[in-house]
Amino acid sequence: MGIVVLGTVALDSVKTPFGKREKMLGGSAAHFSMSARLFTKVNLVAVVGKDFPCEYIDFLERKGIILTSLIRSQGSTFKWEGQYEGDLNTAQTLNTELGVLSDFKPVISEEERRIKYIFLANVDPDIQRHLLEKMRSPKLIGLDSMNFWIHHKRNSLLRLMKMVDIFVANDQEARSLSGETNLVKAAKWLCSRGPKIVLIKKGEHGVLLLSEKFIFSLPAYPTEKVIDPTGAGDTFAGGFMGYLARAGKANTMNLRKAIAYGTVAASFNVEDFGMNRTAHLSMRDLNKRLAEFKKHILF
Amino acid sequence: MGIVVLGTVALDSVKTPFGKREKMLGGSAAHFSMSARLFTKVNLVAVVGKDFPCEYIDFLERKGIILTSLIRSQGSTFKWEGQYEGDLNTAQTLNTELGVLSDFKPVISEEERRIKYIFLANVDPDIQRHLLEKMRSPKLIGLDSMNFWIHHKRNSLLRLMKMVDIFVANDQEARSLSGETNLVKAAKWLCSRGPKIVLIKKGEHGVLLLSEKFIFSLPAYPTEKVIDPTGAGDTFAGGFMGYLARAGKANTMNLRKAIAYGTVAASFNVEDFGMNRTAHLSMRDLNKRLAEFKKHILF
Repeated sequence: MGIVVLGTVALDSVKTPFGKREKMLGGSAAHFSMSARLFTKVNLVAVVGKDFPCEYIDFLERKGIILTSLIRSQGSTFKWEGQYEGDLNTAQTLNTELGVLSDFKPVISEEERRIKYIFLANVDPDIQRHLLEKMRSPKLIGLDSMNFWIHHKRNSLLRLMKMVDIFVANDQEARSLSGETNLVKAAKWLCSRGPKIVLIKKGEHGVLLLSEKFIFSLPAYPTEKVIDPTGAGDTFAGGFMGYLARAGKANTMNLRKAIAYGTVAASFNVEDFGMNRTAHLSMRDLNKRLAEFKKHILF
Repeated sequence: MGIVVLGTVALDSVKTPFGKREKMLGGSAAHFSMSARLFTKVNLVAVVGKDFPCEYIDFLERKGIILTSLIRSQGSTFKWEGQYEGDLNTAQTLNTELGVLSDFKPVISEEERRIKYIFLANVDPDIQRHLLEKMRSPKLIGLDSMNFWIHHKRNSLLRLMKMVDIFVANDQEARSLSGETNLVKAAKWLCSRGPKIVLIKKGEHGVLLLSEKFIFSLPAYPTEKVIDPTGAGDTFAGGFMGYLARAGKANTMNLRKAIAYGTVAASFNVEDFGMNRTAHLSMRDLNKRLAEFKKHILF
């Protein structure tokens, strides 16, 4: 079972206490794909500009990611510039250039429209809905967003939430959208807006999943090697949705395993800048760390 | 196997979004005892002033806590006044009155000196060392502290750390004492100062344990009922040490179980003001929630 992921493919400039990198390959859909590709076929739907380096296209293709619907438009690629300090848990955005993202209309092939697993990674909720309406027979739809859309397109986002199965947010976003400070209450509020499953990512503190039937939480994989957390949330989502697409069924046990795989995938992502680490991952690496992680939380 | 706990018995005035309470029974040793008593005999070593209500003494005794070495001094009881806002994860101290604590010298009986499990709950590190030096044959020594002592008595605290087996700190304290922002690095630094085991409490985000042999982490028990988190860390420590004292051996599996019991005990503590909830707990309540908690993190 393949996945369609819609989101951004970006040029990221990042500064952390461990160094600085300019115009790395980044973006929500790119990070998601780099992780989900380990589990299943991934069709990436996004837009880049004329300035987007060909070597990044080659790189994504070499990783097996299907780029049929990666559009190259006139204008410049979406750029994000940010920095991390202290515990590296929160990004500070220094600059954002929307570029070609500002009038992006996703176009996908007839074949892609029939894919059943869909992830709407962070991008304007109107663009997310545009894609979703094209899909012929979705089986599982995941949705991510960010503070910018929560504040500027709250109604679009709330309308979209009614159409999806899984809503993914970080703790700040969950609090901000729901108005609840307690995360379990926030998750319940979000669940009441449509999605059957709500997943709250807490960065270095792990993750909380709430569904009508059960609640599940895991700490992050404890690591002292945190070089650049950019894309950790999307890498998590890629592992999570990737596992579910491969398993073919989002039952309780598979959801738990999917979260564990997402957690482990994200733990690799933070170990180096951009996709330097996740680009070289194998299922063997993931499984090895998963077994270690299982021991960490055993009692 | 009993436990000796040294720490504070205080009068706490607390304001949270759910209300306000004046001069409740509180303090590190009191909260610890209320939780540890479920597992083993607890001898509480502390000082109170002339103004300390007799009904609180009766209350502690009714709960089976041994008060032979609870001294009543001239002067006034230690008082803490604080408030919580937002996610209730961080206390804001409004006022502290040391009172009788400022020249407290713990005195314990010959029988108590032979108890093998010792917990030095938060109080001046010089007082903690004073007690520790009286103990005849410690088997397991736990130590907690707080930011005030980390800043004002750093050397005393570091010297004391060499004498204990387990050091307990919250995330801020661990970062502040070690100078490391990454919590795994912070825990390793703390471990290098003496204690074989370091336990970092992360409030609503759970706990991380690091020893020379293994690393263990658990999320908090997910709860939407957080009324007053005062004493949650001490309640955690009480469950943790209480379980170890009852088990009689701090091997890997017992340490893991001890953390799980501590986590569950703390989750009850936050559900009501002061000790309103923990005072009415039974082992049955703990075991029931422990079984639920185990399901939460199963994958």
